[in-house]
Amino acid sequence: MARYDFASDNVAGAMPEVIEAVARFNSGFTPGYGADAICARAADLIRGLLDTDAEVRFAASGTAANALTVAALAQPHEAVIAHRHSHLATDETGAPGFFGSGVGIIGLPGASGRIDPAALEAALAKPDEAHWQAPAALSLTNATEYGVLYSEAELTALITPARAKGLKAHLDGARMANAVAAGFDPRAPGRLGVEIMVLGGTKAGATPTEAIVLIDKSLGRRFGARLKHAGQLISKGRFLAAPWIGMLETGAWSARAAHANAMAARLAGAMPFALAHAVQANAVFVDMDEAALVRLRETGWFVYRFIDGSVRFMCSWATTAESVDELAAALRSIA
Amino acid sequence: MARYDFASDNVAGAMPEVIEAVARFNSGFTPGYGADAICARAADLIRGLLDTDAEVRFAASGTAANALTVAALAQPHEAVIAHRHSHLATDETGAPGFFGSGVGIIGLPGASGRIDPAALEAALAKPDEAHWQAPAALSLTNATEYGVLYSEAELTALITPARAKGLKAHLDGARMANAVAAGFDPRAPGRLGVEIMVLGGTKAGATPTEAIVLIDKSLGRRFGARLKHAGQLISKGRFLAAPWIGMLETGAWSARAAHANAMAARLAGAMPFALAHAVQANAVFVDMDEAALVRLRETGWFVYRFIDGSVRFMCSWATTAESVDELAAALRSIA
Amino acid sequence: MARYDFASDNVAGAMPEVIEAVARFNSGFTPGYGADAICARAADLIRGLLDTDAEVRFAASGTAANALTVAALAQPHEAVIAHRHSHLATDETGAPGFFGSGVGIIGLPGASGRIDPAALEAALAKPDEAHWQAPAALSLTNATEYGVLYSEAELTALITPARAKGLKAHLDGARMANAVAAGFDPRAPGRLGVEIMVLGGTKAGATPTEAIVLIDKSLGRRFGARLKHAGQLISKGRFLAAPWIGMLETGAWSARAAHANAMAARLAGAMPFALAHAVQANAVFVDMDEAALVRLRETGWFVYRFIDGSVRFMCSWATTAESVDELAAALRSIA
Amino acid sequence: MARYDFASDNVAGAMPEVIEAVARFNSGFTPGYGADAICARAADLIRGLLDTDAEVRFAASGTAANALTVAALAQPHEAVIAHRHSHLATDETGAPGFFGSGVGIIGLPGASGRIDPAALEAALAKPDEAHWQAPAALSLTNATEYGVLYSEAELTALITPARAKGLKAHLDGARMANAVAAGFDPRAPGRLGVEIMVLGGTKAGATPTEAIVLIDKSLGRRFGARLKHAGQLISKGRFLAAPWIGMLETGAWSARAAHANAMAARLAGAMPFALAHAVQANAVFVDMDEAALVRLRETGWFVYRFIDGSVRFMCSWATTAESVDELAAALRSIA
Repeated sequence: MARYDFASDNVAGAMPEVIEAVARFNSGFTPGYGADAICARAADLIRGLLDTDAEVRFAASGTAANALTVAALAQPHEAVIAHRHSHLATDETGAPGFFGSGVGIIGLPGASGRIDPAALEAALAKPDEAHWQAPAALSLTNATEYGVLYSEAELTALITPARAKGLKAHLDGARMANAVAAGFDPRAPGRLGVEIMVLGGTKAGATPTEAIVLIDKSLGRRFGARLKHAGQLISKGRFLAAPWIGMLETGAWSARAAHANAMAARLAGAMPFALAHAVQANAVFVDMDEAALVRLRETGWFVYRFIDGSVRFMCSWATTAESVDELAAALRSIA
Repeated sequence: MARYDFASDNVAGAMPEVIEAVARFNSGFTPGYGADAICARAADLIRGLLDTDAEVRFAASGTAANALTVAALAQPHEAVIAHRHSHLATDETGAPGFFGSGVGIIGLPGASGRIDPAALEAALAKPDEAHWQAPAALSLTNATEYGVLYSEAELTALITPARAKGLKAHLDGARMANAVAAGFDPRAPGRLGVEIMVLGGTKAGATPTEAIVLIDKSLGRRFGARLKHAGQLISKGRFLAAPWIGMLETGAWSARAAHANAMAARLAGAMPFALAHAVQANAVFVDMDEAALVRLRETGWFVYRFIDGSVRFMCSWATTAESVDELAAALRSIA
Repeated sequence: MARYDFASDNVAGAMPEVIEAVARFNSGFTPGYGADAICARAADLIRGLLDTDAEVRFAASGTAANALTVAALAQPHEAVIAHRHSHLATDETGAPGFFGSGVGIIGLPGASGRIDPAALEAALAKPDEAHWQAPAALSLTNATEYGVLYSEAELTALITPARAKGLKAHLDGARMANAVAAGFDPRAPGRLGVEIMVLGGTKAGATPTEAIVLIDKSLGRRFGARLKHAGQLISKGRFLAAPWIGMLETGAWSARAAHANAMAARLAGAMPFALAHAVQANAVFVDMDEAALVRLRETGWFVYRFIDGSVRFMCSWATTAESVDELAAALRSIA
Repeated sequence: MARYDFASDNVAGAMPEVIEAVARFNSGFTPGYGADAICARAADLIRGLLDTDAEVRFAASGTAANALTVAALAQPHEAVIAHRHSHLATDETGAPGFFGSGVGIIGLPGASGRIDPAALEAALAKPDEAHWQAPAALSLTNATEYGVLYSEAELTALITPARAKGLKAHLDGARMANAVAAGFDPRAPGRLGVEIMVLGGTKAGATPTEAIVLIDKSLGRRFGARLKHAGQLISKGRFLAAPWIGMLETGAWSARAAHANAMAARLAGAMPFALAHAVQANAVFVDMDEAALVRLRETGWFVYRFIDGSVRFMCSWATTAESVDELAAALRSIA
């Protein structure tokens, strides 16, 4: 059977600290729907990590967490600006439009998944007319789909002109652990006044859980109803909170992301194909023609060709140096 | 702090068989989004339990599982018939309308959460006009919100006239484990030709997971896209499947539901207040005035007053005979 | 063929002043989508009538005008309070849920279509929880579905407690012309601070047009996009505006409504059946058993049995005294 | 004030035959909501024109007619293929996503608004996965946004491979009158088995009305409820039907479109700027730099720059040879 180790960062299970915490917080009776002490403790830890007095809720999937928070920032006749290769724009089967009742996505270009400031400027300059969905929010992804980072200054350079036009800022942090492990300050979103951040648990190594961080607490009004209406108010809320306690109390959230990043660097160092994007987090993208990809898959390693045409290798908390070296050997054999 | 033991069947954690299975299936790499061998094995077990060749998918919440399957059976300008006290009608913060883009609910009366056949007949006789949302599906709940059972004959008596009018049948089985433990044949839905059944995992004692059973396999077309669009295609799908393996391979799914039912019977036997509904599954509803409920809460036991005005006590896999006896003593002290 | 004269107030064509205005404003070229001088002039006339500095837009149907303005006041996980027999609640095939992506309706009782203040008080006192759609707006209808009026004081008595709980006020004025002709001051909604009012054109005697009056002008932001998104930004906007000029410049809007009201009074005076509601506007509701209704229909007059079980006779600008007398004779013949 | 004569084909009023018919069918009482003899007669005339036994309904705007019919062909987690410059894709403020609860648009390239068959083939070859919205329908526009025609053979070449993949066919005929006047056989859509066609009234010279032609009559089930739910079941339905009687009984629908086409040809013949697209219907698109457009507007003529960068001049039933000559003179003066 094919080996999926590098196909994505969601092909791994959960890190030991998560499994331990799930078992630890399993006992006893608690109120349902997120009103329990375990959820409160996880929220405290997240507020501590981000150094912000946010309201914190949990959702069971990144698709839902991103789509429903976008819907909280833009009305159905409005749009959200996002990178045209962002997960929001390309890989959610239209979920933002579903949660947002037809809300639009304005996809902008930019190298390695970072929105080009000039493209943003042009989009913001477009007159506000009845015949198109004008933007109400700007969604940024850090680390990007291509495994590179926005610096805080780069985020500022995008958020500032957007805010001047009345847009709210949304941060998709599905791989924020990898960004933080690579040097991004987790307190930056709070300083930048990002209204909503989705903090990734699943890809960091949890069982299914994402944290919705409402840095603008006024958005928290009736948010429980918003979650329930959208099928995301999980009754046994403890199981979405416990993983965060396991990951944050121990520091494993960022420590294991640092490992994933190191595995990507190791793979990049041994890579016989040209890198398509800088390797700053846990992803390695390379230029590889179809014949080479077929040969690679014939060696048993399954990986995907991505939207931009390059081939993607993802590392995670579970990636081992041995598997990197095995893969590198296979790559050399078919290069 | 208040004791929530009897407040609901979702105030408990997960049964040991579930925690064990989550840990057991945690290792190794698998494809994402439900395309893995763990999901396939769980689906096989569910098909075996139900003795039907259904397509089986998983969702992270009962709200979502019920609302999105209802939306698969009725168009936005149509409605679903359900009991007027059903979870679908009263306790989902409008989720069916959200997932179904305004789909309507026609709430019918009937004792103890079972739809009255005469009320159904009247609803089905209403002419099909443009000025109201005519029904496209009939949703039934077994065990009902009030902890009583439909027999297979009673289900037949409702589904047959509905089908004659072109309606599809939907079965909310959030507490199907309790129904099965009480004697309901899990093969009945397949025999009855129910198009979609939601088989409850969470309330049975799992970490968050519900099984969507598409007995009408034609409804499975593009169902993965439907799930993803609605934020319910969990990337690490194994964590929604493993609990089912743990519960079904061991027989714990129904065995522990039998325990929950027995605890409800024990409580009913010791109950100093009049029963509001027959006790057939894991719920005990009693007539209790507000002053008595306040006194009960003052003893430390938190329970809810339900829609019909009675007070509800729920038992689960985690309920102990000792806690039932403690509660019964408290009840006697305030009766 | 059956005579529909009294079946509704939309079975009539348009009054001569409307047909004249449509023809008059037909010539020449104008910008599209409501940005023309004809729309501006109609909006001025409406602001004058209501004595309020509102933003005024037009829609092609009352269903759409009401449903999309409700959606502008309540989010999908919230609800709107309305009379349980209101058009919004009972006669829109779920349109509010469609335009509002699942927005809920909380239907309250009250005699003759006027919400009972005690019922409102109880609804407002319900705690704001995640498990139901809490109200964000109060929708009132004047004249009501049963042809009676709210006085300004009665509206105040409902809007004041609702506003104290943060709800916005919405006024369905499909039959406002009849209310004004019966003595209701058209300046009252502005004084009361109703956020949005739908001012009825069609039932008053126009070709299809309703005016959306945004008394809270902040709701006007991107309202053109909201209309277009919902299929209600008519390209040849002049044809939704011209009827208003025809009706308001001449005073026919209220004068012909006064005629309709007088016809209802004439019918009530000659009515051999007991009145079910006070006759204050253009409707007459009577108690009539099914056999009598069948006999009436056999005489050629088609009218509807309404939600409350009574039989409804509607008068309009086009109703003649002769037809009232003919109908009255038929009624006497079958009484 | 600027002259809008050529800004669009909706800046004109209604043709005399329409105004006459509106007045003619204004008298008397009729059932509401499209159940009247006037609607039946208009539907008969449309079926005669198209030589097909379709169900015919009416809507008040093209945006609504197209968006709600697309929603009848594709589910929310699916998409519709359309030309990337089609009205559906670019000029509806996201209405398809609103009516279709997030339904996607797959925008394909092709010269002059006609979908490139190779691009369609590539789109149809894309595997059907859960992670994107796979197509359920193909929407074609004739005449296209750029005023050129698909021949019946060209439509066949697109519909045949789409149908082989299970897609339904949708035809946006907002300017079908111009296409027919240019030689397109109105019986072609029926022969081709197009499931739904929207037949344009407004741009042809009517007051607001579009005909929804359900060539696949099975789609007509509960279509009245679908219209009402979406705010498009106009109570005084006669006013959406009468214009069609006026236009079709007299032949003015196509005769006046032939005039519009002739005016476009006259303008093209006198045009000092290079044509950007062939002139086959009522539109003239030219290459004109921004400075020239500014100069033209300074002469008082207001026209739009279109999505493809060219400048658009639209003719209609109301365009006069004199105004064409005046405009041509102005164009020569600034060329």
